[in-house]
Amino acid sequence: MPKIVDHEARRAELARAVWRVVQREGVAAVSVRATAQEAGWSPGTVQHYFSTRDQMLEFAMETAIAAGAGRVEPLLADDAHADGDPVTAAVGILESLAPLDGDSRVATELWVAFLARVLVDERARAIENRGADELADECRRLVTSLCHPPDDEQIEFEAVRLHALLDGVSLMAVTRPGRMPPERVREILRRHVAQIASGPAPAGSRPHGVRTAVSGPRGRSR
Amino acid sequence: MPKIVDHEARRAELARAVWRVVQREGVAAVSVRATAQEAGWSPGTVQHYFSTRDQMLEFAMETAIAAGAGRVEPLLADDAHADGDPVTAAVGILESLAPLDGDSRVATELWVAFLARVLVDERARAIENRGADELADECRRLVTSLCHPPDDEQIEFEAVRLHALLDGVSLMAVTRPGRMPPERVREILRRHVAQIASGPAPAGSRPHGVRTAVSGPRGRSR
Repeated sequence: MPKIVDHEARRAELARAVWRVVQREGVAAVSVRATAQEAGWSPGTVQHYFSTRDQMLEFAMETAIAAGAGRVEPLLADDAHADGDPVTAAVGILESLAPLDGDSRVATELWVAFLARVLVDERARAIENRGADELADECRRLVTSLCHPPDDEQIEFEAVRLHALLDGVSLMAVTRPGRMPPERVREILRRHVAQIASGPAPAGSRPHGVRTAVSGPRGRSR
Repeated sequence: MPKIVDHEARRAELARAVWRVVQREGVAAVSVRATAQEAGWSPGTVQHYFSTRDQMLEFAMETAIAAGAGRVEPLLADDAHADGDPVTAAVGILESLAPLDGDSRVATELWVAFLARVLVDERARAIENRGADELADECRRLVTSLCHPPDDEQIEFEAVRLHALLDGVSLMAVTRPGRMPPERVREILRRHVAQIASGPAPAGSRPHGVRTAVSGPRGRSR
C-alpha cells in the first residue's frame, strides 16, 4: 500500500511553526524559509503546502480564530454548570479573547499584521471578517446574558460597542503595551461589563444565572 | 542667486500624492513609481526625498496625524465661543476624527496599514504612538468636559475607554464597512458620550458650557 500522507495534519504542523516564529521574532520574521527551518522541513516541502508567505499567514490566522473558539468553549461549559454570576462569566470569556497570555498575544499580533491586507485583499478580508462575525455573535450572547429581559435595539448597540471596545483594547495592548498592560485590559473589560449589567433594565429584572443565549462554542483568538 | 528649492514643500507635495494614491487604489498600491506618476515627477526625483515605500508611508502617516489636529482645532475654537452643550461638542470632535469622510477615511486606512509595522519597527511605532498620545490627551479633555467636577481615577478610566472605543469603531468602519456604516459610527459615539455625561457625577453637578480642559489644538487623523 502506498504511504498515506495526512496533508491536513502537515498543514497544521506548519501553522504551529508559523506561530512559534511570530511568538519569538514577530510577524515580520515569517517567511517560507523561517517556517521551514522552524518545522525542520526543506523550503521546497513547505512550498508544497504554502507557496507564499501570505498563504502561511492566512492559514495561521484561521488557526488563531479556531484557537480562540477553543479557549471560549470550556468556559461556556463551566458557566452552564456553575450557574454563577453572569458578570464574572462574561469577564472570563472576554479575558480569554484579549491578548493576556502568550497564545492570545500571538493571535492578536497575527490579527493586527493581517489588517493591512484586509483593506486590499478579498481573501484576507473574508478570513478576518468571518472571525469578526464569530466575535460579534459572542458579544451579542454576552450582552444578552448581562441584561435580561432583552431590548433588541439596546442589545445590538451594547454588543457592537463591546466588540469595538475589545478590538480597541486588544490593539492597544500590542501596539502600546506600556500604556495598556494586562491589568489595565482586565480593569477596562471588568468595569465595562459591570456597567452593561447595571444598565437600563430596572434593578431586579435581571435574573442571575440566565444566559441561555450563550450556548455554543464561539469566539475568536485575539 | 541660486534657485532655492523648498524641500519641505516638495515633501508635502509628495505626501499629498501618496494620499491620492491611497484614496484611489488603496494602501497596497503605494510605491515610489506610483507616487512619482501621481505627482508628475521622475522616480529618481521622488527617491531623492523618499528612498523607500516605508519612508513614504511614514511621512503620509505623520501628515495624517497633523491633518487630524487641523480638523479638531476649528471645532475647539467654535466650541469656546458658542458655549454650547458639551455632549454635542464632544460628539462633533470625535466625528471629525472617525473615518466618516474621504480624508479621514484615507487617514484611517493609512493607520491600519501602518499597524503591522508598528509591531516590528521602532520608527513606525514612535510615529503611531505619538499620534495615539495626542488622541489620548484629547479623549481626556473631552471626558473632563463631560463629567465635571472630575474624579481623576474615573476620568482616566473613561478617557482610555473612549480612546479604545474610537479605535475599535474606526477599525471596523474600514475593515467591515457593511457592518459599521457611517450612521452606525455616529450613533455609537453619540450614545457613548451621552452615557459618560450622565455618569456617576450627581445630577445637576455638571455645569454645561464648562470645558476649559479642552483648550488646545489636538487630536489626530483617524
